[in-house]
Amino acid sequence: MSLYSETPSAALLPSGFSDLLPGEAEAEARGIACVMEAFSRHGYERVRPPMLEFETSLLNGSGGALSTQTFRLMDPSSHRMMALRPDMTTQIARIASVRLQDAPRPLRLSYSGSCIVIGTPGREADRQVSQAGIELIGPDSAQADAEVVALGARALEELGIKGVSFDLSMPALALGLIETAIPEADREDLIQALNRKDAASVAELGGSIADTLAVMLQAAGPASRALDLLASLDFPASVRPHFERLVASVAAIRERAPSLRLTVDPVDFRGWQYHTGLCITVFSTTSREELGRGGRYIAGQEPACGLTLRPQALLRAAPVPPSRPRCYVPVRLEDEAMAALHAQGFATVSALEVDAEPDAEARHLRCTHVWRNGAAHAL
Amino acid sequence: MSLYSETPSAALLPSGFSDLLPGEAEAEARGIACVMEAFSRHGYERVRPPMLEFETSLLNGSGGALSTQTFRLMDPSSHRMMALRPDMTTQIARIASVRLQDAPRPLRLSYSGSCIVIGTPGREADRQVSQAGIELIGPDSAQADAEVVALGARALEELGIKGVSFDLSMPALALGLIETAIPEADREDLIQALNRKDAASVAELGGSIADTLAVMLQAAGPASRALDLLASLDFPASVRPHFERLVASVAAIRERAPSLRLTVDPVDFRGWQYHTGLCITVFSTTSREELGRGGRYIAGQEPACGLTLRPQALLRAAPVPPSRPRCYVPVRLEDEAMAALHAQGFATVSALEVDAEPDAEARHLRCTHVWRNGAAHAL
Repeated sequence: MSLYSETPSAALLPSGFSDLLPGEAEAEARGIACVMEAFSRHGYERVRPPMLEFETSLLNGSGGALSTQTFRLMDPSSHRMMALRPDMTTQIARIASVRLQDAPRPLRLSYSGSCIVIGTPGREADRQVSQAGIELIGPDSAQADAEVVALGARALEELGIKGVSFDLSMPALALGLIETAIPEADREDLIQALNRKDAASVAELGGSIADTLAVMLQAAGPASRALDLLASLDFPASVRPHFERLVASVAAIRERAPSLRLTVDPVDFRGWQYHTGLCITVFSTTSREELGRGGRYIAGQEPACGLTLRPQALLRAAPVPPSRPRCYVPVRLEDEAMAALHAQGFATVSALEVDAEPDAEARHLRCTHVWRNGAAHAL
Repeated sequence: MSLYSETPSAALLPSGFSDLLPGEAEAEARGIACVMEAFSRHGYERVRPPMLEFETSLLNGSGGALSTQTFRLMDPSSHRMMALRPDMTTQIARIASVRLQDAPRPLRLSYSGSCIVIGTPGREADRQVSQAGIELIGPDSAQADAEVVALGARALEELGIKGVSFDLSMPALALGLIETAIPEADREDLIQALNRKDAASVAELGGSIADTLAVMLQAAGPASRALDLLASLDFPASVRPHFERLVASVAAIRERAPSLRLTVDPVDFRGWQYHTGLCITVFSTTSREELGRGGRYIAGQEPACGLTLRPQALLRAAPVPPSRPRCYVPVRLEDEAMAALHAQGFATVSALEVDAEPDAEARHLRCTHVWRNGAAHAL
């Protein structure tokens, strides 16, 4: 019986899962290698957690926020439920707080791998999501926030992605402000109005902080203008430290990456489920997709800040790397000649028998060059 | 709530799944990159199938041999069963015969990724298995067999693995011989005896081919001695081509890789579930584990030969690559100085505040060097 004998029409993949073909798969691998190399050069050491864990471990703590997006499997060995990882940050937090609890802090870790999410039936989106990221565990400071953002920006620059923008938010600022002034029963409606950027409803529901929230709504945009507008506001003492930290983090990022495009949205708190401080979303003018996201959270008992890039989105935003030129060579070319071609950057494609017409066969195999008289000749 | 808040004792992973920590994860990634680079230089183009597919697609044809080792999941989107891949060869066969059906042949594909197997409860073994491999699709020739073996040997050499041995077998030879001479009802007992290398039972059950099988049992060992012994046998015409092909493949491998250690076991047919010709197992004298396996099979309608290496086993057999020296640098070191350190091969580890005692902090962070007076100094 042959391996794979179905008809093409039966060979469909589940929605959200795809093959990467030659070219695409190579570009993805090179993109991941490029960002992982940038992380490694800056002292972030790679860890590799498994594709699945016991459900109790993977979805514990705030990892539970991803529970509805997680595939589960019965482990026939332990009779316990396992879960396919929908995200790697919980795993890195586990490694930091258990396996590497005695490693010195700050602890800098990097990772790459695939995650699987259930997705929303009927909505087309990737359900196998590549991630490549960093976590800086231990310090809670504007300099730590800035290192993570600046290194993310550096990695994207090395991939050749243009027009990168880091969009910052600080959900604790607006949420804390609402808690000081709005009765608990009324908060959810106000938060929904802020999420919709619905200024009329915010004015109506905002009570004593309606004017402050109106300015915060208007402030969303380039970081320097946003921070100037926010500086005019008189935040209560309980939330003022969040504003000051945002100012300090932006200043520290600017010192490290003066030309990086930064925006601030002081009333963005959508999708930040376990984050406790600065939140980061990465975009590029060359793509409408989110290229990555991250921010500050608590890993076990420790402050941490991380950033996860999405290689699939990076590839759609990055220039396509040139592929290796291919040289068709005779069966049994000497090792030295082959090594010389490889050193010149060629991929060699070997004949498997003696060819009457090597040029024709070379073209047939999409080669750019053919070996003749001791050298590669362009076709 | 924090990300990951369980106690360490609850943080156990399911048996067969593990974390790779700094050093190990880097070594695995470098090992995979090294073999994939060797494959790419020889014209094998990378494809990347998804982690899971519909069960009907992943386990169709002879992929079904892996059915009992495969985790299944319900797809809430299509309400069809999906399966986590236990192996990638079926996926590459699908890509070759459907997605790349119009690509020119010979088609050379490479791949790397993780596979998940159910394993045997109570038996400790990896259940998440990394694979990195090649498939040569289209030609059915000794030269094609030899290209796959020689390229696998080259990749292992580049990884620095010593004492590599390629163990070859040709199950169709002994099976075909048995079919010519032994009644169907008696074949299974004889095959079991051959699997056990039980010469007494083979003599008893072997009927008219008992003497031939005795020589084949004795022949297992270094390829040249094995082929000499087999050459003395008078194989029936129906199986003689298998022997001749084995001789031709060994000769073609020797031409390409004269110093490669080759063995032949003419009565090995354990674990070859979809293979139709030459079968290959890779070992090294530095490790007792199988480093890889492969062989000839039918992909869709086409002849194919492949080899899958197991990066986890390779790492246990390969010398540990030296890790990057780490240089502790002050907060906000100029970009040029940082780039110069990276160009010298250093990973930089940045201070996040001004240090009173940078040498102590550098040692604490396992750095080998510290930046002082404009240069890296060894600690």
